[in-house]
Amino acid sequence: MSRHRQPTFTLTTGPVNCYPEVLQGLARPVLYDYDPVFQETYERVSRKLCKVMATDEPPLILQGEPVLGLEAAAASAVSGEDVALNLVSGVYGEGYGFWLQRYCKELLEIRVPFNEAIDPASVEKMLAERPDIKVVALCHHDTPSGTINPVRQIGEIVARSGAIFIVDAVSSFGGMNVLPDDVKADIFVTGPNKCLGCPPGLSLLSVSEAAWRKIESNSTAPSASILSLSDWKTAYKASEPFPFTPSVAEINGLEAAVDRYLEEGEHAVWARHALTAKACRAGAKAMGVRLWPASEDIASPTTTSVTLPEGVTDAALRGKMRDRYGVMISSGRGETHDKLVRIGHMGPTAEPLYAIVALTALGSALSELTGKAYDIGAAVTAAMEVITKAE
Amino acid sequence: MSRHRQPTFTLTTGPVNCYPEVLQGLARPVLYDYDPVFQETYERVSRKLCKVMATDEPPLILQGEPVLGLEAAAASAVSGEDVALNLVSGVYGEGYGFWLQRYCKELLEIRVPFNEAIDPASVEKMLAERPDIKVVALCHHDTPSGTINPVRQIGEIVARSGAIFIVDAVSSFGGMNVLPDDVKADIFVTGPNKCLGCPPGLSLLSVSEAAWRKIESNSTAPSASILSLSDWKTAYKASEPFPFTPSVAEINGLEAAVDRYLEEGEHAVWARHALTAKACRAGAKAMGVRLWPASEDIASPTTTSVTLPEGVTDAALRGKMRDRYGVMISSGRGETHDKLVRIGHMGPTAEPLYAIVALTALGSALSELTGKAYDIGAAVTAAMEVITKAE
Amino acid sequence: MSRHRQPTFTLTTGPVNCYPEVLQGLARPVLYDYDPVFQETYERVSRKLCKVMATDEPPLILQGEPVLGLEAAAASAVSGEDVALNLVSGVYGEGYGFWLQRYCKELLEIRVPFNEAIDPASVEKMLAERPDIKVVALCHHDTPSGTINPVRQIGEIVARSGAIFIVDAVSSFGGMNVLPDDVKADIFVTGPNKCLGCPPGLSLLSVSEAAWRKIESNSTAPSASILSLSDWKTAYKASEPFPFTPSVAEINGLEAAVDRYLEEGEHAVWARHALTAKACRAGAKAMGVRLWPASEDIASPTTTSVTLPEGVTDAALRGKMRDRYGVMISSGRGETHDKLVRIGHMGPTAEPLYAIVALTALGSALSELTGKAYDIGAAVTAAMEVITKAE
Amino acid sequence: MSRHRQPTFTLTTGPVNCYPEVLQGLARPVLYDYDPVFQETYERVSRKLCKVMATDEPPLILQGEPVLGLEAAAASAVSGEDVALNLVSGVYGEGYGFWLQRYCKELLEIRVPFNEAIDPASVEKMLAERPDIKVVALCHHDTPSGTINPVRQIGEIVARSGAIFIVDAVSSFGGMNVLPDDVKADIFVTGPNKCLGCPPGLSLLSVSEAAWRKIESNSTAPSASILSLSDWKTAYKASEPFPFTPSVAEINGLEAAVDRYLEEGEHAVWARHALTAKACRAGAKAMGVRLWPASEDIASPTTTSVTLPEGVTDAALRGKMRDRYGVMISSGRGETHDKLVRIGHMGPTAEPLYAIVALTALGSALSELTGKAYDIGAAVTAAMEVITKAE
Repeated sequence: MSRHRQPTFTLTTGPVNCYPEVLQGLARPVLYDYDPVFQETYERVSRKLCKVMATDEPPLILQGEPVLGLEAAAASAVSGEDVALNLVSGVYGEGYGFWLQRYCKELLEIRVPFNEAIDPASVEKMLAERPDIKVVALCHHDTPSGTINPVRQIGEIVARSGAIFIVDAVSSFGGMNVLPDDVKADIFVTGPNKCLGCPPGLSLLSVSEAAWRKIESNSTAPSASILSLSDWKTAYKASEPFPFTPSVAEINGLEAAVDRYLEEGEHAVWARHALTAKACRAGAKAMGVRLWPASEDIASPTTTSVTLPEGVTDAALRGKMRDRYGVMISSGRGETHDKLVRIGHMGPTAEPLYAIVALTALGSALSELTGKAYDIGAAVTAAMEVITKAE
Repeated sequence: MSRHRQPTFTLTTGPVNCYPEVLQGLARPVLYDYDPVFQETYERVSRKLCKVMATDEPPLILQGEPVLGLEAAAASAVSGEDVALNLVSGVYGEGYGFWLQRYCKELLEIRVPFNEAIDPASVEKMLAERPDIKVVALCHHDTPSGTINPVRQIGEIVARSGAIFIVDAVSSFGGMNVLPDDVKADIFVTGPNKCLGCPPGLSLLSVSEAAWRKIESNSTAPSASILSLSDWKTAYKASEPFPFTPSVAEINGLEAAVDRYLEEGEHAVWARHALTAKACRAGAKAMGVRLWPASEDIASPTTTSVTLPEGVTDAALRGKMRDRYGVMISSGRGETHDKLVRIGHMGPTAEPLYAIVALTALGSALSELTGKAYDIGAAVTAAMEVITKAE
Repeated sequence: MSRHRQPTFTLTTGPVNCYPEVLQGLARPVLYDYDPVFQETYERVSRKLCKVMATDEPPLILQGEPVLGLEAAAASAVSGEDVALNLVSGVYGEGYGFWLQRYCKELLEIRVPFNEAIDPASVEKMLAERPDIKVVALCHHDTPSGTINPVRQIGEIVARSGAIFIVDAVSSFGGMNVLPDDVKADIFVTGPNKCLGCPPGLSLLSVSEAAWRKIESNSTAPSASILSLSDWKTAYKASEPFPFTPSVAEINGLEAAVDRYLEEGEHAVWARHALTAKACRAGAKAMGVRLWPASEDIASPTTTSVTLPEGVTDAALRGKMRDRYGVMISSGRGETHDKLVRIGHMGPTAEPLYAIVALTALGSALSELTGKAYDIGAAVTAAMEVITKAE
Repeated sequence: MSRHRQPTFTLTTGPVNCYPEVLQGLARPVLYDYDPVFQETYERVSRKLCKVMATDEPPLILQGEPVLGLEAAAASAVSGEDVALNLVSGVYGEGYGFWLQRYCKELLEIRVPFNEAIDPASVEKMLAERPDIKVVALCHHDTPSGTINPVRQIGEIVARSGAIFIVDAVSSFGGMNVLPDDVKADIFVTGPNKCLGCPPGLSLLSVSEAAWRKIESNSTAPSASILSLSDWKTAYKASEPFPFTPSVAEINGLEAAVDRYLEEGEHAVWARHALTAKACRAGAKAMGVRLWPASEDIASPTTTSVTLPEGVTDAALRGKMRDRYGVMISSGRGETHDKLVRIGHMGPTAEPLYAIVALTALGSALSELTGKAYDIGAAVTAAMEVITKAE
């Protein structure tokens, strides 16, 4: 069969293809940032984000993809006197330790295997032992593993301790029920480029009053810097200046995404993410591949991670799927690289029948690579049973 | 007359409205960053930028508007042992001192009034007096003044001194003849969001070998950071990883802009910028307003700065132009705020007849605000004479 | 000066450049015409058009630019027993006689010079003399002349006679106060591709009950044909089939245009068309060119026609404007070709400052071609006086 | 499960969703039709179409979806002295008789059941018996049946007879090897809105010299009409006028489609249409549904028609697929309505894995509606075997 030059299906964990409305939003005329219409747009988008994130205050919009938001959160909230606790259940959680370490006095870590989730009890124990912990960081959905941490329970525990709770919800927010105040996050970092169906280019941060107080008392918190949170604190107001030029086109795309999200309704959006993932897992198991998460309870509704069978490399499998079937999925990262592959269910691809596409390409490629028969018929049957029975 | 809700003409100094090709480029499907087609796209765009910037090595593309490139250049190239010299002829040049100061041991400054340009002789003298200067920074086009500094002559002088030469060419590059190697810049910072006609969201940096050596020997140069240059050094290669997710849609828009620029030809592009500005200045003078630059020799081909007449505020003038005529122009910034207004000639608006639009709205608004007759007839006649006589 | 490969300003009488919202609408995903969402869209757009056209019943949307609507109106409403009266004040009005002639028994004509308007009294007289006239046709805005006929007065007279009144309002509707029922039109033909700011590709027809009766009793009225009106009579209903596939993308663009029109408000839209034309005429006169219409009372608010000075050809003048200044305007057509040129004020270019652009390019080109000085300074001053004084 | 408000997969037989490049093409600025750049564009597109259609002369581009081209072909080529032979193997072929009848003296017909193809021998016999036949019409791909007629063999036979051969290749051209000269068509009617992946709005007609002679000698052939072919004969030349305003945006979209087609290469495009259809048929059979065509030899590579099982209505089946799974497929038309449903493989959806999507939704919906188990596992397995084995 002829090679697929272009992908037909981008079923990755980000960048994801955008909703059509977003692509059209990106093509709107670019206005001067101090044109009153753009100033109003920026404030209006910010206020719509309050609805989306269920916060009283508009989130900060930082002008770079969420890795900026994550670095900026550490740079702003963590000071040289702080003891920080990093909760590590995956590559992204582990990586956050690098930034915490850069800014804190002492870094503690709770670590579990990268196919498991953090046990809230372990956090409670650590906080009791080390009441000097001032910052706790958690990656809610550790995308390279496709696993979800119990952010709500951990949030309760951290809140009782008085520490600042930094949550990376980049690839879970918008695809499941995770909201800043509800999980007691002090700095909740996410972006529109995963489950909201936008291109990468912006970060969204909800910052609690406690976090603002910590930032404002932190003498090393960046200001007049791309890494500053404070610079943007009041920038959402049409009457206030921007610290530097916002990414006008990305803001236009974000407005389209937010309008779409609010129109569909968060519960409907979350339900189709969950259903797609559930169907995908059912199909994967029926086909004879192993899910990466130790338990389905912690499998993400926005990513299905599948363990690579013995002897199959990431490059061979994803290459075959992309080349022969036009299906692009994501690789693992760091420690999970070459141990698993990942099917994204984010934004426009969080639609159950995309799970069928992914499973079919995955099973067919595996059969060809291993010589062993992966039963795609069983996979599709099992996945469709989940889909059809859903209410 | 009824108020203009939307601007009809955005004749600002950035953000500028984009070329139509760019808006369509932004609306292309968003691919996974590790899709081979996107990896090839990124390298292809990078290599096209070599042509545009006349460099052997592709420039770095940083994932944020040029203020990121400027901060990152200081953070990367300036170390705590460095004596740095900042050349200040305007608000942006002055502002760069803030970042130099943050990272250097000692900051020196040469300063001229904000309607003048740096005298190369003064730089030569300073470098002779202080051979320990390791970094010299210059804002080529200080946009808030609309003035151009003699970057080529200064570049020669700095090169002889052995110092690293950081050039902010954000709002001049692409609109006039200023190229990194030609002006002996070691770090040349620009962006596609001015004269290339893209939205804000990316920085372009050409980095010399000497600058790379300095960065690599700088123990405080950022890495694993949004502020790092090194992280992106080899990222343009399709075979190399990205340090984090690039702004896919902005890259797609950039490719459209670069294709357009190369197709029109740099000399044609520069000529229409220069002609538009020349016509605008001729018209302004004929109308009876005063140009801000002390001499037309240093007036920018991408911005025309006009001194506010006594008693006219920026808000009143630009508000009137925007509201009554639908024409949006730029204000001054910092020290130049409320002293001048600025008409941008960048990318799609670097077309001579846009000067007519700007002059007409400007003169009419001034007449109304002051009760004095600004002669728009003379302005248009003078501007058209320039335009018509151009070859 | 270098040649303009692309036009910078398209100031024509159609095709006009589209509103940005329309271009984005055209790029929406194309749905199956029997997808319930498209069926609802088609009905929704049709019902919004009721508001725009102030009719009770949705207009027909024919799937071709308005020349289709005009031919179809004649084919459907005129039968071989009919005496038809064609009112001719320009090239388009004259041309309509060709279609009337094709279908009617006898064709009568009232004709005035192509820079004048039809006198309602002449129509009244003719209808009194020939009570057997069954169809009267009028071109409201004869675009190749830029003149407006007194449609409301003529409509009253025709209504009293009992004849069917066919009105071509293609290039006036949406840019001035002309509404089907208000002018007593029985078949009112227009399109979204002029003052609504859409691309050419659709016709809009409002058909009165009397006209439907005439069509239904006309045994030669087309059916199962692109020329049929009846085929589309109920097609706007989501529950009814389409006679053939509608132009889905054009419908999407039309919805964007209609939404924009309703949001701005018809009176605001009409006012800016009128003001732009008034300023343009003032400027043209001040510059020393002659308006084509015999009287400004009949000059169109959507087109300004300027008589070519002796010895200046259309090709030379428009070529110079396009090549040197990037300004594209329209030529005359047929009898008016090489006698006049036309500046369009339609949709997005119905903005006063576009009159300045057009006048400046026109005057400069004329000066160069004739060696005589056309005073663009006076032109701009006069035009701006009109604009500034408008409420 | 929640209802799908929007379709997720439009797998219809037209309108089809467009290629992304086409949607971006539609959003290009709309130029004046007599702008030299648009005139060149129109000629350039026309000449590219020569390559696509393998003709010496550019095809006519009529400004309406292909039903216009089909009606215009009959109106232009068929005169009141003609005996015409209509070859009927489906609803569209049958429908063409209506137009032939309108214009000819006597209409003959060869008819086969609507799941079979025309036997060339029957045509040969009829032409031998009735040497006065002047026009033969064939629908190559009768879309409402999803069946292909042996156009090449019939073309040979008609050519020998000297009659004019009108071929409707609307939904086959661009998706399989069918080219005007190669099949000896005199009037070959197609459009960009099926396998080229454009929206409906244009017709493409290749007209032989013999056909032009017939049209020119036909005194009733339309002129100055939307139905005229002659009006557009030389309109492709940049130097010639358009008979009326072309649909500028659709032409822009067409250019994008044609560029894409030529870049991918016709053989690659045809191969993926054929493979998708073959996989779809294999899957359908394995699942236990019956293909509509009497033999797979005549099954279209651009449409798979599936016979509705006893007791299942079109509305119930397609409604279920659309509502529950977000998959829109096409119904039958006329005589085939409620007897079959159709899965389109046209343009962007002519990708093998879309067959999997369609089969899965189809089988699941059928199982639910009938209570009988349609084996989607077997379907997917069989389809993927075809896909995987393809070279």
